[in-house]
Amino acid sequence: MTAAVTPANIFQIGFGFWASKVLLSAVELGLFTELAKGPADLATLSQRLGLHERAARDFLDALVALKLLDRRDGKYSNAPDTDLFLDRAKPSYAGGLLEMANARLYESWGSLTEALKTGRNQNEAKDSGDIFAALYADPDQLRGFLAAMSGVSLGAAQAITAKFPWKDYKTFADIGAAQGMVAATLAGAHPHLSGAGYDLPEVKPVFEEFIAKRGVSDRVKFLAGNFFMDPLPVADVLIMGHILHDWDLPQKCMLLEKAHAALPKGGVLIVYELISLSKCFFSFPVRH
Amino acid sequence: MTAAVTPANIFQIGFGFWASKVLLSAVELGLFTELAKGPADLATLSQRLGLHERAARDFLDALVALKLLDRRDGKYSNAPDTDLFLDRAKPSYAGGLLEMANARLYESWGSLTEALKTGRNQNEAKDSGDIFAALYADPDQLRGFLAAMSGVSLGAAQAITAKFPWKDYKTFADIGAAQGMVAATLAGAHPHLSGAGYDLPEVKPVFEEFIAKRGVSDRVKFLAGNFFMDPLPVADVLIMGHILHDWDLPQKCMLLEKAHAALPKGGVLIVYELISLSKCFFSFPVRH
Repeated sequence: MTAAVTPANIFQIGFGFWASKVLLSAVELGLFTELAKGPADLATLSQRLGLHERAARDFLDALVALKLLDRRDGKYSNAPDTDLFLDRAKPSYAGGLLEMANARLYESWGSLTEALKTGRNQNEAKDSGDIFAALYADPDQLRGFLAAMSGVSLGAAQAITAKFPWKDYKTFADIGAAQGMVAATLAGAHPHLSGAGYDLPEVKPVFEEFIAKRGVSDRVKFLAGNFFMDPLPVADVLIMGHILHDWDLPQKCMLLEKAHAALPKGGVLIVYELISLSKCFFSFPVRH
Repeated sequence: MTAAVTPANIFQIGFGFWASKVLLSAVELGLFTELAKGPADLATLSQRLGLHERAARDFLDALVALKLLDRRDGKYSNAPDTDLFLDRAKPSYAGGLLEMANARLYESWGSLTEALKTGRNQNEAKDSGDIFAALYADPDQLRGFLAAMSGVSLGAAQAITAKFPWKDYKTFADIGAAQGMVAATLAGAHPHLSGAGYDLPEVKPVFEEFIAKRGVSDRVKFLAGNFFMDPLPVADVLIMGHILHDWDLPQKCMLLEKAHAALPKGGVLIVYELISLSKCFFSFPVRH
């Protein structure tokens, strides 16, 4: 047995679901929203959140150990990141994604081995085969999903807003805009920009509510469309975030062709994605 | 929105269950045992493990990203830690703990919010209230549990073996010995030591099989007993690993009293545990 080799990384990863579930339950219970009002001690928090005494202290201390809470003189408070991103009362709330992970994904991932052996979906589309039809059919579930997508997009929205040379462009359209996180962040930071969120018609009320809350309704509109059947909207900059990964190679290429057709000369397509690099071996002809 | 505050840590933790489940499924599928025989490419591994092509590459590449596998020229191989600790053919196998996490704990932790609200067990003892009775009643489940405890104890066994001044002591007894990982590691490294593993009688065949495999049966015996009803065995050094956390304060104190009574003058009790520090506010009188 080599002294330098330890099982630490293996167990850290293997039991990572403990830390996940502690955070996901904290979001579900509204802990960070409660603490955003001010620090509170164990008894106060237990009473407000309905926590049983058996595990309440370990639960809160686990969140301290994970650096998601601070503890000082017996009072718990939010860490800077949980205060900004996990307080439901703030427009920067990104916990919808974790709510979705808690309510839907954690259980589906329990069937990972079956998925690996059979290649079949383990989510709500396990039977129907169409995850979006299943999600969009239920307004509450759709609302939760769209809010979750804001969590997925938040980091990218900040980076794209800060790092892309927006001064050289006037209009944008976010393809598969969901709640409108990217559009709202962009328009909020760059007053010279106007743009659109493009998504299925069911998304319209959720998008418009979010955009109004962010105070950019005068410059950000909703465009209803289905990117399989309709052309993409025309804009200086098109954005596709976490869209391509849902589809196989022929659909990916078709979507990129449509983006190409919709862009003016000198236009730009911004794609942000989580795709395994070893799979990105296709090339796409550029014809500008 | 402060530029320096990002949701990175929140999402890293919140989605940690993805990484966990990838590793747990890899252990379940015997991936590391297969790769311990030599590097293999995607097609070979998929065929040997029965992986469907849809997710096989992403699955293996995810393990590479987690540093649990290496990939070179299209062939996958074990990382040093997974080769040592997750190959079932090696005596250092510590994957029993992850097998238990996969088969039992992942699902139970899905009910964490309910546990926090009600204070009730969410594991096999959800109804009966006695987790050990539930586990020990089924020989297969008991065997899995005891092997899992070897994973829990492995890091501590290595540290205790290396760092404690064993040259000053001759005998030890491991209280709640399970499969015998601590006893076997100690006896294997220190030929002057003899000792015992103390556990419930059902554990005897599993313990003796493990100790025989490790080649230390001549110096390590099994002692059957119930530490609530019987005295603890006499030895220069008593070890209690992950025992105290299972019991409330009165039982903890009783077990420490029994250890005190069983130790000779100059004897030592080694306790290793995962206990939240903020709860360790009781003191225990030392009377040597």
